[in-house]
Amino acid sequence: MRNVVVRYVSAPDESAVATLAKLGVSTTHEAAGRTGLTEPVLRPIYPGARIAGRAVTVLSHPGDNLMIHAAIEQCSAGDILVVSTTSRSTDGMFGDLFAAALQSRGVRGLVTDAGVRDVATLREMQFPVWSRAVHAQGTVKNTPGSVNVPIAVAGRTVCPGDVVVADDDGVVIVPRLAAPAVATAAEKREALEAEKRKQFESGVLSLDLYGLRAKLESLGVEYIDESELDIGRTP
Amino acid sequence: MRNVVVRYVSAPDESAVATLAKLGVSTTHEAAGRTGLTEPVLRPIYPGARIAGRAVTVLSHPGDNLMIHAAIEQCSAGDILVVSTTSRSTDGMFGDLFAAALQSRGVRGLVTDAGVRDVATLREMQFPVWSRAVHAQGTVKNTPGSVNVPIAVAGRTVCPGDVVVADDDGVVIVPRLAAPAVATAAEKREALEAEKRKQFESGVLSLDLYGLRAKLESLGVEYIDESELDIGRTP
Amino acid sequence: MRNVVVRYVSAPDESAVATLAKLGVSTTHEAAGRTGLTEPVLRPIYPGARIAGRAVTVLSHPGDNLMIHAAIEQCSAGDILVVSTTSRSTDGMFGDLFAAALQSRGVRGLVTDAGVRDVATLREMQFPVWSRAVHAQGTVKNTPGSVNVPIAVAGRTVCPGDVVVADDDGVVIVPRLAAPAVATAAEKREALEAEKRKQFESGVLSLDLYGLRAKLESLGVEYIDESELDIGRTP
Amino acid sequence: MRNVVVRYVSAPDESAVATLAKLGVSTTHEAAGRTGLTEPVLRPIYPGARIAGRAVTVLSHPGDNLMIHAAIEQCSAGDILVVSTTSRSTDGMFGDLFAAALQSRGVRGLVTDAGVRDVATLREMQFPVWSRAVHAQGTVKNTPGSVNVPIAVAGRTVCPGDVVVADDDGVVIVPRLAAPAVATAAEKREALEAEKRKQFESGVLSLDLYGLRAKLESLGVEYIDESELDIGRTP
Amino acid sequence: MRNVVVRYVSAPDESAVATLAKLGVSTTHEAAGRTGLTEPVLRPIYPGARIAGRAVTVLSHPGDNLMIHAAIEQCSAGDILVVSTTSRSTDGMFGDLFAAALQSRGVRGLVTDAGVRDVATLREMQFPVWSRAVHAQGTVKNTPGSVNVPIAVAGRTVCPGDVVVADDDGVVIVPRLAAPAVATAAEKREALEAEKRKQFESGVLSLDLYGLRAKLESLGVEYIDESELDIGRTP
Amino acid sequence: MRNVVVRYVSAPDESAVATLAKLGVSTTHEAAGRTGLTEPVLRPIYPGARIAGRAVTVLSHPGDNLMIHAAIEQCSAGDILVVSTTSRSTDGMFGDLFAAALQSRGVRGLVTDAGVRDVATLREMQFPVWSRAVHAQGTVKNTPGSVNVPIAVAGRTVCPGDVVVADDDGVVIVPRLAAPAVATAAEKREALEAEKRKQFESGVLSLDLYGLRAKLESLGVEYIDESELDIGRTP
Repeated sequence: MRNVVVRYVSAPDESAVATLAKLGVSTTHEAAGRTGLTEPVLRPIYPGARIAGRAVTVLSHPGDNLMIHAAIEQCSAGDILVVSTTSRSTDGMFGDLFAAALQSRGVRGLVTDAGVRDVATLREMQFPVWSRAVHAQGTVKNTPGSVNVPIAVAGRTVCPGDVVVADDDGVVIVPRLAAPAVATAAEKREALEAEKRKQFESGVLSLDLYGLRAKLESLGVEYIDESELDIGRTP
Repeated sequence: MRNVVVRYVSAPDESAVATLAKLGVSTTHEAAGRTGLTEPVLRPIYPGARIAGRAVTVLSHPGDNLMIHAAIEQCSAGDILVVSTTSRSTDGMFGDLFAAALQSRGVRGLVTDAGVRDVATLREMQFPVWSRAVHAQGTVKNTPGSVNVPIAVAGRTVCPGDVVVADDDGVVIVPRLAAPAVATAAEKREALEAEKRKQFESGVLSLDLYGLRAKLESLGVEYIDESELDIGRTP
Repeated sequence: MRNVVVRYVSAPDESAVATLAKLGVSTTHEAAGRTGLTEPVLRPIYPGARIAGRAVTVLSHPGDNLMIHAAIEQCSAGDILVVSTTSRSTDGMFGDLFAAALQSRGVRGLVTDAGVRDVATLREMQFPVWSRAVHAQGTVKNTPGSVNVPIAVAGRTVCPGDVVVADDDGVVIVPRLAAPAVATAAEKREALEAEKRKQFESGVLSLDLYGLRAKLESLGVEYIDESELDIGRTP
Repeated sequence: MRNVVVRYVSAPDESAVATLAKLGVSTTHEAAGRTGLTEPVLRPIYPGARIAGRAVTVLSHPGDNLMIHAAIEQCSAGDILVVSTTSRSTDGMFGDLFAAALQSRGVRGLVTDAGVRDVATLREMQFPVWSRAVHAQGTVKNTPGSVNVPIAVAGRTVCPGDVVVADDDGVVIVPRLAAPAVATAAEKREALEAEKRKQFESGVLSLDLYGLRAKLESLGVEYIDESELDIGRTP
Repeated sequence: MRNVVVRYVSAPDESAVATLAKLGVSTTHEAAGRTGLTEPVLRPIYPGARIAGRAVTVLSHPGDNLMIHAAIEQCSAGDILVVSTTSRSTDGMFGDLFAAALQSRGVRGLVTDAGVRDVATLREMQFPVWSRAVHAQGTVKNTPGSVNVPIAVAGRTVCPGDVVVADDDGVVIVPRLAAPAVATAAEKREALEAEKRKQFESGVLSLDLYGLRAKLESLGVEYIDESELDIGRTP
Repeated sequence: MRNVVVRYVSAPDESAVATLAKLGVSTTHEAAGRTGLTEPVLRPIYPGARIAGRAVTVLSHPGDNLMIHAAIEQCSAGDILVVSTTSRSTDGMFGDLFAAALQSRGVRGLVTDAGVRDVATLREMQFPVWSRAVHAQGTVKNTPGSVNVPIAVAGRTVCPGDVVVADDDGVVIVPRLAAPAVATAAEKREALEAEKRKQFESGVLSLDLYGLRAKLESLGVEYIDESELDIGRTP
């Protein structure tokens, strides 16, 4: 296994990134044809952040943060650092010193399939993190890994240069070249949803708006009254 | 398996519901003889909400929210929607559009044994949700299920018309007809606890207030000094 | 198995405790040679608290809080109550009445390997708790246990009189006699980190500050460009 | 909460029980309209057993097996003991002595939502057990519970007198009065499956046997060749 | 999201597949540079099987096995069916009828990120399965998916035509074109290991064979005697 | 943190070890006053083994097996190797080569809080292993650790020289100096259990043998008939 640091990774379309940052994870996930969503094990360390940016990826040995040190140099303004380990670990590989370094470069946040620490300070710094765990466990700098290679994070593949979108709903990955099309689809969906929402607020039923009454009937769903329901059990 | 939507479900006593909403989950659970409490896997999406209401229940196929659409029509002011799936799923079956529809009908919140999304918007709307997961994963509308049948949620059975009580401590279910008696018992307990609390704040020991010294002695618990405790281990 | 309540447990050095409370879990864990950290299953019931104090320990039968009643009498100002069970339980063994009693004695908080309830009230009282679960499940007072004996909490041993440090990063245990040395090492580390942080904020790379470029090279990590990375897969 | 031991529980139809024991869990679950199946956390302590019988139920305090002692007297030949706890526990509440007592009464096995021990001996005795865990952890006899009341086991309700069916696929519960109808449906299904199986063994495709080609087409599934699939990703 | 069934997928080198089937998962994983190994949640339903073959992949909606029906037609002798769902599910999507159909086509086994049922029959048929769960839970045939597209299984990506290797150690995926090189490396490793094993059996220490004594020394590991170890703790 | 290899660790009483190996985990755990039992996450890789021996302990960095190499030299006939990591890992740190080396020295088995691989070969060699996971994941040899220091394994502390007992019920640790007393108590218990077992096989009830009827009555447990039990629920 060759260990590499890949420099000069292509960036996704800036305007697409801005759109996805505005619309957030659930809309992006739908607009991307329901692909790219990580499993719901990655949670934000504080509520309310919503970011999107270019993925700079790190593949580390468990319990070892050497490659995060190498990755910082590859980060530019607008990036999101995405960290995974070659096998499962919840060690606190990342803390406030790394965040200070990244913030000074304009990096927008961290997504990690491992653990994070110094979360009170990170909240004060408003440096958002999505992680598998909060854990103070320290790490070493002994074993090599890679920067900017494709990695797996919470069940999904992230390539360097992909767009990462993260908010209170989780984290979704959009392939770099697909970003503009997904952004366009996301805006369309958002407009549609806003319209629907007005209708629902005014009392319109989705059963009617989506024409689902016929579907329920064709699937054999029956409408009955409470008295027809036998839920008693006799031992 | 017959799939039904049950209409016109009986409502629990309104005053009992109001009492339980005021006193919350832990007191209700104790007043109900320590029954009806769901397992601690259901967590609120934001802290501070406390609600009680009539259960409108939904049994869905995993990854399919068709029956939530059908359930909205069965909801009235003061209800709580309670959703389960026929097998385990953490998909985001519920989001802000559903919440808008339910809020327009006066529904107080959602309890779901699956996932929820759009949680930032739900927090802004102050529409409280207790769920097994926060997950953006989208769902389809292809497979039938039922509305207002008995369901299992986090290890407990919920019948339509039961009282659901939910707060930061979790979710508890009170059978419809038992609600008035439980509410009365809960108020008695609350008064008692307020009194005890004053005593504890003033330094009285529960060992004395509850007469537990004799119990400890009869169970053979001994009081010793640090010097009598041998906690060294010799390898 | 003898069940005992140990009275008059030695206290750790007060000034060391104050230092560790100020510096928090991650710094203490590092200063202690990366020992004593509990597994990341203990989480605070609300963010922002940071405490340190002498451990008063409780070993309870699962589903039984009798020994917490016995423990209160052994608690003094500045202590932290630490509760474990003889086998895994997430029952809500602790609630606001216990907190009122402890607060009246100057106890700083609770660390429990089981569950806690009344968390909304505890937040209002600003009585911090780190627990394995939030669960309203009530408990009984039937089976004996011990107070102030060594216990295991989330994978670590706690002896009565040890220093417990807890904040948003988790919970770490420092042996009583080691506390002054750990506090001194923690202050040294903190000063060092503050200095490093300034450098990182000004754009210095840890690769340079720590001399890691040579290490990466000696470990065989290569720098390449995007074009040299073949990440396509052909089916 | 009243604690009771219910005597003289009605028995399910013997011939239905025999049929379900022969056909096993998956067929019973399907014949029962896909209801009554426990979550897949209950596993057999050794492979190969398949049993069915009348449920004698036990509701115990966690870490306490007093009520199993009380339950033995209520067991008759052909029964299956079903144990749950009022809150989650994996303690080894059951071992070879209990099995000896139950085997002497003709009891067919144990289903427990907690732990079991002495599993090597139980395997030798050919006393089958389905449990959440194998754990040697000992229990006490201090806190009351109930025998032959409805309980929840791995997400499903079991009433005393229900039919329990257990094999390598898990555990399914059939309400007592429904057993004959479910047994009849199970036999029909079994015959049908045997027939289908012959067809599949001879190479017939289920796509054709079930007429699914039209369904795939109507759902928009397209048949393409490898060359039409673009699975490359460009960073 | 387009749903497709991809026909005529390229096959990996047959001799490489045979080599990897003989050498098994751990050797293949090492020979592949420690890549492609699935997370340890996939377990065999019975011990002792070891297979390798071409991956035919299925992406299903959770709780729906329609696409497995479509996949059978795409399977040939020597293949391994690999099933995943668009979101987490442990439903028993696969049972003995599917196995009969696959066995009649010469398929070697199943790897599934969901559940399996009829495991006693599958064991009798000697049709090996690696799954996330054993669960009788039935599924429907309502929602489309795809056959022979890249899928994620237990944290790893599987492309149609990749080599799947599975035994008691788990499941590893080798990209189709890499298979011959990996097979060659695996044989070299196997020969080396056989040689080493003889040495270890004769009492040679790996410390000496691998020259690790110098490494331990350079890392600062000290050799001391029991008397020098202070493991006592004073409370 | 000092990294050490401790040589010449004291051995426990041989005859006590032999007794505990014969009587197994559950009896040892009871005889030791219900202490020392590991949590039920450690499972044997094949059923039927029962061993006891002196603990040689290893504390490794996660994903790194360097210290196992160092530990082999410290192992003698009759020992059991016990491995833990400084933070949670399920990597396959141990395989058939290590087992060959240990078997050549007369070591009886392995207990590991991490993962193991080559389990089919280990079964053939009849080298028993209790582990948290079966995982092929390879490890490196880069980071120091210690041999024969106190470690935590699945929630319990193991000191070098302690007695480890392991069988199908799990793993229990007995402090070295306590072993003779525990062995004596275990034999007494075994004799008592054999006697009780005869009684239970002949139909005597534990309710009578242990005098539990009075206890049930004093705890308020009532005997009622099925007709007195109201388990119906009205919605």
